[in-house]
Amino acid sequence: MAKINSNYLKLPGSYLFSTIGRKVREYKEIHPEADIIRLGIGDVTRPLSSAVIDALHSAVDEMGHEETFKGYAPDLGYEFLRNVIAEKDYKARGCDISPDEIFVSDGAKCDCGNIQEIFDTDNTIAVCDPVYPVYVDSNVMAGRTGEYDPQTERFKGVIYMPCERENGFVPKLPDEVPDLIYLCFPNNPTGAVIKKDMLQKWVDYANEHDSVILYDAAYEAFISEDDVPHSIYECDGAKDCAIEFRSFSKTAGFTGLRLGYTVIPRDLTAGGERLWPLWARRHGTKYNGAPYIVQRAGEAIYSDAGRAQVRETIAYYMSNAQVILDGLSKAGFEVSGGVNAPYIWLRTPDNMTSWDFFDYLLDKAHVVGTPGSGFGPHGEHYFRLTAFGSRENTVRAVERIVSM
Amino acid sequence: MAKINSNYLKLPGSYLFSTIGRKVREYKEIHPEADIIRLGIGDVTRPLSSAVIDALHSAVDEMGHEETFKGYAPDLGYEFLRNVIAEKDYKARGCDISPDEIFVSDGAKCDCGNIQEIFDTDNTIAVCDPVYPVYVDSNVMAGRTGEYDPQTERFKGVIYMPCERENGFVPKLPDEVPDLIYLCFPNNPTGAVIKKDMLQKWVDYANEHDSVILYDAAYEAFISEDDVPHSIYECDGAKDCAIEFRSFSKTAGFTGLRLGYTVIPRDLTAGGERLWPLWARRHGTKYNGAPYIVQRAGEAIYSDAGRAQVRETIAYYMSNAQVILDGLSKAGFEVSGGVNAPYIWLRTPDNMTSWDFFDYLLDKAHVVGTPGSGFGPHGEHYFRLTAFGSRENTVRAVERIVSM
Repeated sequence: MAKINSNYLKLPGSYLFSTIGRKVREYKEIHPEADIIRLGIGDVTRPLSSAVIDALHSAVDEMGHEETFKGYAPDLGYEFLRNVIAEKDYKARGCDISPDEIFVSDGAKCDCGNIQEIFDTDNTIAVCDPVYPVYVDSNVMAGRTGEYDPQTERFKGVIYMPCERENGFVPKLPDEVPDLIYLCFPNNPTGAVIKKDMLQKWVDYANEHDSVILYDAAYEAFISEDDVPHSIYECDGAKDCAIEFRSFSKTAGFTGLRLGYTVIPRDLTAGGERLWPLWARRHGTKYNGAPYIVQRAGEAIYSDAGRAQVRETIAYYMSNAQVILDGLSKAGFEVSGGVNAPYIWLRTPDNMTSWDFFDYLLDKAHVVGTPGSGFGPHGEHYFRLTAFGSRENTVRAVERIVSM
Repeated sequence: MAKINSNYLKLPGSYLFSTIGRKVREYKEIHPEADIIRLGIGDVTRPLSSAVIDALHSAVDEMGHEETFKGYAPDLGYEFLRNVIAEKDYKARGCDISPDEIFVSDGAKCDCGNIQEIFDTDNTIAVCDPVYPVYVDSNVMAGRTGEYDPQTERFKGVIYMPCERENGFVPKLPDEVPDLIYLCFPNNPTGAVIKKDMLQKWVDYANEHDSVILYDAAYEAFISEDDVPHSIYECDGAKDCAIEFRSFSKTAGFTGLRLGYTVIPRDLTAGGERLWPLWARRHGTKYNGAPYIVQRAGEAIYSDAGRAQVRETIAYYMSNAQVILDGLSKAGFEVSGGVNAPYIWLRTPDNMTSWDFFDYLLDKAHVVGTPGSGFGPHGEHYFRLTAFGSRENTVRAVERIVSM
């Protein structure tokens, strides 16, 4: 008799963003006239840049002619894309990453979710609290955790690392040594960053204890300050302990186009076994590459015109972030993030719970955000707003919140 | 200390198509003048049809304007695509499949590789021999098999179902009952098909024993004969025991565009648990949807123009298949497949091993095919040729083989 993977049943019922969607729909039914502004889910709103659109049209034309048609992509991704990534994202920052250490994929979410597969199910994982749910949920599905405890809102067997106001939302090195350490900076959901000297401590810790760091740098393009590392490979010894994930989603508005990549250094090992061939084998067996036309679109953001256009879009979103930061802090809210990341993390007023504040904001200001507690218990009493709206909506949302 | 998933180490060294690639490169180095024709890997060569190209251009334009820009796709895929699939691929054939039972993805290979995740690791699997390697390898990686035995060229704990000349390359119902049964018809690599009455027996068997059939119908579009089922859901009771995979890769030349879908009936269960919510959860957690522009391209093949163009391309490939079948059978080869599938399965002459025939064909005819033994021990003494070349190359390849 076929049986299911019962680890899936450990996952609590509904996904955070589904619950938000349901609550907004229900509110809309009762208040059909409400003009709701959504600053909740982290999806972009600006169109693709002209360099990307031109590259897409041109690649589509290639697919329409026998001489230039492309079938299956190479397993690791096209060389034209891996070469420019190695050059502009790494060599230009002094990081020694070669094109064959880069695996092109359809996005950082898939890679972050799938990477755990190449590790032993007995490995212990450490995650920040609050945290992007994919890291934990994908490990739950693989049986790498115990049951969910509704009291603590945590899975047994997972090392949760609190990220609080007191530590600037950057976790302390854990006392109990994890085998796999998920870090995400600039952080989703808090918008916090890690300075290079602190990240170096994590690299040293991982090398000392033979842990592997799974470093999610999906928001790297939003970094505006000088002493914030863009890649973990800026730290000494990171090639001996770290895998890095990058995304084109927020950087260049590719959430609907799907492109990302993962860096696995050639000689990175776990328990004496190299990880590169395992991930290559997984790519070869369970994946068939990102579309040629999308890889050409990715290449286009590294051209001079493409880079300028990407910077312009990011500047647009970061001005939104500034509007939110300024408005809310003037109104007395305790806010952080929003300087090197598109997320603003705010303390709920009057010690309201995150979900109470969600309902309050929806009802009084018709603004949708994300309850911090949805990202983990240390997100309680916090709330996430995103800078991905239009300028007009962002300004209106802040005006409404301020005048609540 | 981090440790790897040691199940990966059970996989034998090199992947079939990598070995073929290496052998061809080595031959080319010694014989740089050789004009090599590749009828090995199952990749298409005809350009995308004009309906698809137009849909892509139009969708790309939408992505360039704020009003029509699309971010994250809906978890299951866009409704416009799921609706047309339900209508044209299922309702039109009398199969009661609704749009919300269809999960759009970036290809059947990914879905075939990932589906095993939602089942218990203790489940036993049954596969045809010879077989498309992804079914077995993805289960090896998950720890659902024992070690590889180089003597038998098989993994322990897997039920292999021989597909031989004597049974028309369609397996018998197994004596030992498997929990999960992988079937692929029209078949890769043999090109064989299963008739509806025989498939009904498999459905009845699965329902009787509470097994789940994982039915790979990636080559459905190549069916030309009347009594061959296009979908397993044409059989009574299949919604109670079967998951079906479909691909746009060969149908419409999407190998480089990436689009497929999986059907999981709403009420299909394993051990009393519904499978639909598990796959939905997997999609939501580890996947972020196929690109909007590619989903629009997929929709275009269901338009009147799109369908006509797809049929024309398939007819082109199937004429190639006919050229190969006619030429080789006239020359005395024992051939099968090639009528409802783009693969021709031929018996090697003089009882040569598959790899010996590969070397012989490469050397004498400069034609590359795929050794049958690469798909499993019962593929030994067989050889696969594909119909995906150009007409000119196909004709020349057959002429060369015939005059060897």
